Formats: sequence, C-alpha cells, structure tokens
Amino acid sequence: IDPKAAEAARLRQGVLTKPPGSLGRLEEIAIRLAGWQGKERPALQRVSAIVFAGSHGVTARGVSAFPAEVTAQMVANFAAGGAAINQLAKAAGAELSVVPLDIDKPTADFTQAPAMDDDAFLTAVSTGHDAVAQDADLIVLGEMGIGNTTVAAAVAAGLFGGNGGEWAGRGTGVDDAGLKRKAEVIDEGLTRHAGRLGDPLAVLAALGGRELAAIFGATLAARRHRIPVVLDGFVCTAAAAPLAKLSAGGLDHAIAGHVSAEAAHRRLLEALSLSPLLDLGMRLGEASGACLAVNILRSALACHNGMASFAEAGVSEG
Amino acid sequence: IDPKAAEAARLRQGVLTKPPGSLGRLEEIAIRLAGWQGKERPALQRVSAIVFAGSHGVTARGVSAFPAEVTAQMVANFAAGGAAINQLAKAAGAELSVVPLDIDKPTADFTQAPAMDDDAFLTAVSTGHDAVAQDADLIVLGEMGIGNTTVAAAVAAGLFGGNGGEWAGRGTGVDDAGLKRKAEVIDEGLTRHAGRLGDPLAVLAALGGRELAAIFGATLAARRHRIPVVLDGFVCTAAAAPLAKLSAGGLDHAIAGHVSAEAAHRRLLEALSLSPLLDLGMRLGEASGACLAVNILRSALACHNGMASFAEAGVSEG
Repeated sequence: IDPKAAEAARLRQGVLTKPPGSLGRLEEIAIRLAGWQGKERPALQRVSAIVFAGSHGVTARGVSAFPAEVTAQMVANFAAGGAAINQLAKAAGAELSVVPLDIDKPTADFTQAPAMDDDAFLTAVSTGHDAVAQDADLIVLGEMGIGNTTVAAAVAAGLFGGNGGEWAGRGTGVDDAGLKRKAEVIDEGLTRHAGRLGDPLAVLAALGGRELAAIFGATLAARRHRIPVVLDGFVCTAAAAPLAKLSAGGLDHAIAGHVSAEAAHRRLLEALSLSPLLDLGMRLGEASGACLAVNILRSALACHNGMASFAEAGVSEG
Repeated sequence: IDPKAAEAARLRQGVLTKPPGSLGRLEEIAIRLAGWQGKERPALQRVSAIVFAGSHGVTARGVSAFPAEVTAQMVANFAAGGAAINQLAKAAGAELSVVPLDIDKPTADFTQAPAMDDDAFLTAVSTGHDAVAQDADLIVLGEMGIGNTTVAAAVAAGLFGGNGGEWAGRGTGVDDAGLKRKAEVIDEGLTRHAGRLGDPLAVLAALGGRELAAIFGATLAARRHRIPVVLDGFVCTAAAAPLAKLSAGGLDHAIAGHVSAEAAHRRLLEALSLSPLLDLGMRLGEASGACLAVNILRSALACHNGMASFAEAGVSEG
C-alpha cells in the first residue's frame, strides 16, 4: 500500500463539498483504492471478474440440493451469457472470465482422503495466480461448484475451529436432513485431517477444492501486483482466508463485497475483521454479490474524482 | 399495483438459472417494479432524480454546523455539477433536476409560528407534484436545506410520538451543545403545535419545510402515476411519512434506498416498515443514498430480464 497516495486521498475527501465523513463508506473506499493503486485519484478502467469452477467428490455424500452435473451445465450457461453473473458483470462494467478447473474430474471425497494431493493443489493455485492480469485496476472473485458450501464450511472450521454444525448452512437449498448430513460429513473430514489443521495451506488442500485453491492463488497474485480485490460470498471468503492466517494483514487488499444469506458467512467475515458492503440476502456465488458491490466502488470514485472542493465551488465550510 | 404483472415476474424468477430465492432482495425488487410498472419485465429507461431545496427559519436557533447561506451555495454547486449528487446521478444513469423552493425566503421558525401557512404549504406540495414526469420509470427523491434534520426530527416526532432527544441527531455534524439545542428546539415546536399533531398534513405544514412538502407532493404524484419511488435519508423519509399515516399502504410504491448514519432514520424506517437496501454510513442527503441504490435496482432488472431459464440453458433443476 502507498501511504502517500492514501493520505492525499484522505485530504482530498476533507475538502470536497460535503460535511466531513458524510459519504460514509464511500470515503473509506476511495481512500483504500487510492492506497492500493498508489494514486490520489484511483480509477476503475479495467475491472476483471473471474469465476473459478470446480467439482467435488464429497457430492457423493448427498450434501447438495442440486446434482453434481449442474457445475458443468452452469459453466456452459456462463459461456452462453445466460447466468446471473453475465448480467451483473455487464451492469458493473466488469469483463468476465470463467475458469473451469478439471470439472470432469472431481476432487477426492475429503472424508476418505485429502481432496487434492500436492500436485493438484499447486496446479489449481497457479491457475488462479495466472488468471490475474497485472494491468487490472480491480479483481472481482467468485466461484461455481456444486457441493462447495460443504467444502467451504470444512475449510472455515479447519482454519478457525468449531464443528460442522456451526459452519454448515443450506447452500443452494438442502432440507433439514441434508443439512444434518452436511454437518456430519464436515465433522468426518475434520477428524480425518486433524493432523493438518495447524497449516492453513494443508487445510485448503485437504478440505478445499480446485476453485477454492484458485481463488487463493488469485488473491495472492493480486496482492503481489497491489491490485485491490472484491470477495464474494462464503465460499470465496473461505478460499481467501488462509492468506490472513498465513500473515497478519494478508487480506488488507480485500474488500468484502457482501454478506450472504449463508449464515456462516457473517461469522467468517467477523473472524477476518472484514465488514461487508452489501447485505441483500443473496446466496448464489458466481461473484454475484461482489460484482454488485463494484457499482458502489464506481460511485465512490465518481464522487472522489468528480466533486468540487469548497474553494472551487465557493461554498462556506462548517 | 398490477397483481398479474407481479405474479408473472414471480413465476419468471422461479425458472431462471439459479437456486430459487438465491438473488435475495434482487428478486423482490424485480417483482415489485413489475407490479408497479405493470410489466412482467420492468425497465429503467427514464430514471428521474429530483432534489428539492428549502430554507428554514429555525436555523436562527443555531441547530446546524453549517451557516444557512450554504443552501443557496449548494444549489449553485448542483447547477455547476460539483456536488456528490451530480456524480452519483450520472453513475446511476439518472437525470437530475434541482428544484429550489423560495430559498431566499426561509420558512417561519416553527417554535414561534407554523413553518408554512396553508398557501405556502400547498404551493410547495404542488411544485413537488408537478416535478414528477408521468413517463418516468422511477423517481428518486432527495433534498438540500441547512437545518432540515431538525425539521425532519420535529415532523417524525409529530407523526410518531417521542420527544426531541429521541429524534434529534448530529445532521451535518453539530457538537454536543448543538445537539442539545436541536432537541430543545424540537420540543418547543412540538409544544407550540400540540393541537395539530393529530393531522399528518398539519404536522408537515407546521413543523416541516418547503422541500419536505415538495417531496410529499412528488411521492403522492408518483403513486397516482404508478411510478415506483426511491427514498433517500432521514429528511426525505420524514417528508414522505405523512402518506403512510394518511392511508395504510400509502408508501407501498416507495423503496428505502438506504439507512443513513442519522440515528433516527433507522427508527423512522422501522415505524414505516421499510427495509433499506443499503447501509453505508452515509448522511449527506441530496438523494445520494437513493441514487446509489438505483445501481442495485438496475442490476436486479438486468438479472430478471437477461437471465436464461433452466429449460433455455439446459440446466438441471434441484
């Protein structure tokens, strides 16, 4: 982060024609983007939304309301332009990339073995890392993968403690029996991989999935390139969370786009000290909540870059 | 409201390629706009943001952190394009109109007399009513007027009970002494006009201001023309509130764009059973929070109108 650019942006916010602080989080956003982009007046010319897709062996355990083949069907729907994220990315002025990760080859069922071996995990992390364009002004991350709220809950429990019952939610809409199964499956996974829970990367490899590993890689790459990131829902946040466990401030470049209706998301955001911009009861994934938040970021910068100062406008200060 | 169009929109939401309900409030927005516009697929071609400005006699009592002349200065800033709302309206694809209401002639200090006599009140209501274009797809309302959070608090107390201390907030940023003065001034106004508090229109005339009366008129006109309305912050909501007191469901066409940092706004929204879309700590007025919310409405309709159905996309349902 560039403290000079952030400070210059903060000073600018103080002289714009409004009571100090009256634009609330829009001011905070402008100052943070200034710091990460190293510019007093940050820009969102190139906004890159990346949706990673993966398949999960744990779906065999009946943890989702939708069949596993929906992952591939939805990837085709993304390509055809028919999904929510196609519309939301367009509305937010973001270019959308969809990156399927071996979706015809599910990860291992984590109750039986690590979801990914080292090679599969590192390949997925690298794919995510390489998907980040160095010249992007903002990266927006999301995912698609039937079964991945189970996976995300297992990762969150592995990183922050707690059991399956505390982190499992209804995902795409499982019934009570499905929810109970999810919690049990997560507990089985936590027990099987108990020896790995001290290592955030091992947690992600053993209990995560390829799209989660790719989101982790992309979040890391964005940090290296000093590009701010907007995170989406529970799965996306769980995927990025190991960065915060690996180093304090590891997610300082990340903005929580929204808090989803998946109850564990709020808990995870609190564990990461991230305060979501939106709270609209969404629970779709696909980067949908994150893309929606990009509109807020654009408006924040429109004010920051376009408003007149008290002196320019001849307005008396308080 | 057109129940057939709303029902058609609800059915459409059920077949789009996403788990049912997973777009949360975006689904609710699409269905409501369908009902009010009478179209299964509503549109936001013409979005009209109207900012009414007024001056307040009660500013003589030292209730604001800014001098009274700032109202006229900010109206000039709106005309020059330098204010927050200019940037936010542009970012939201809204055409902005600013309507100053006799800003060189403050209303009466409501602790001494009714803020407006019948003639002044009805003139302001009519001005607001006539500012609504019948062919607008959406009306976005806001205000500017130094002193008007005091006025709004008095109106809210007059309509819903409670005293000055419960409804007064820091507005543009008064200190503790100023906040105490605000509460006292509101209590004086409530005492002076105690005989009028049973009549919502008399409350608005006696304790309100011209811009509040105009917002009331515009909200009424929008309802007559079946145009949905987005309300802004505390002042705007207090101005529209008499409609809900006059008839149950009188604000059914109104969407609360955001909840502001002015603490009484949350309380007022609760009294009106309005659930705000955004909560970003904003407290500027000018329709700023409402315009920001227009981006959310646009994204909601982009999904509603642009997504493929399960059948169209060949995606399996849950």
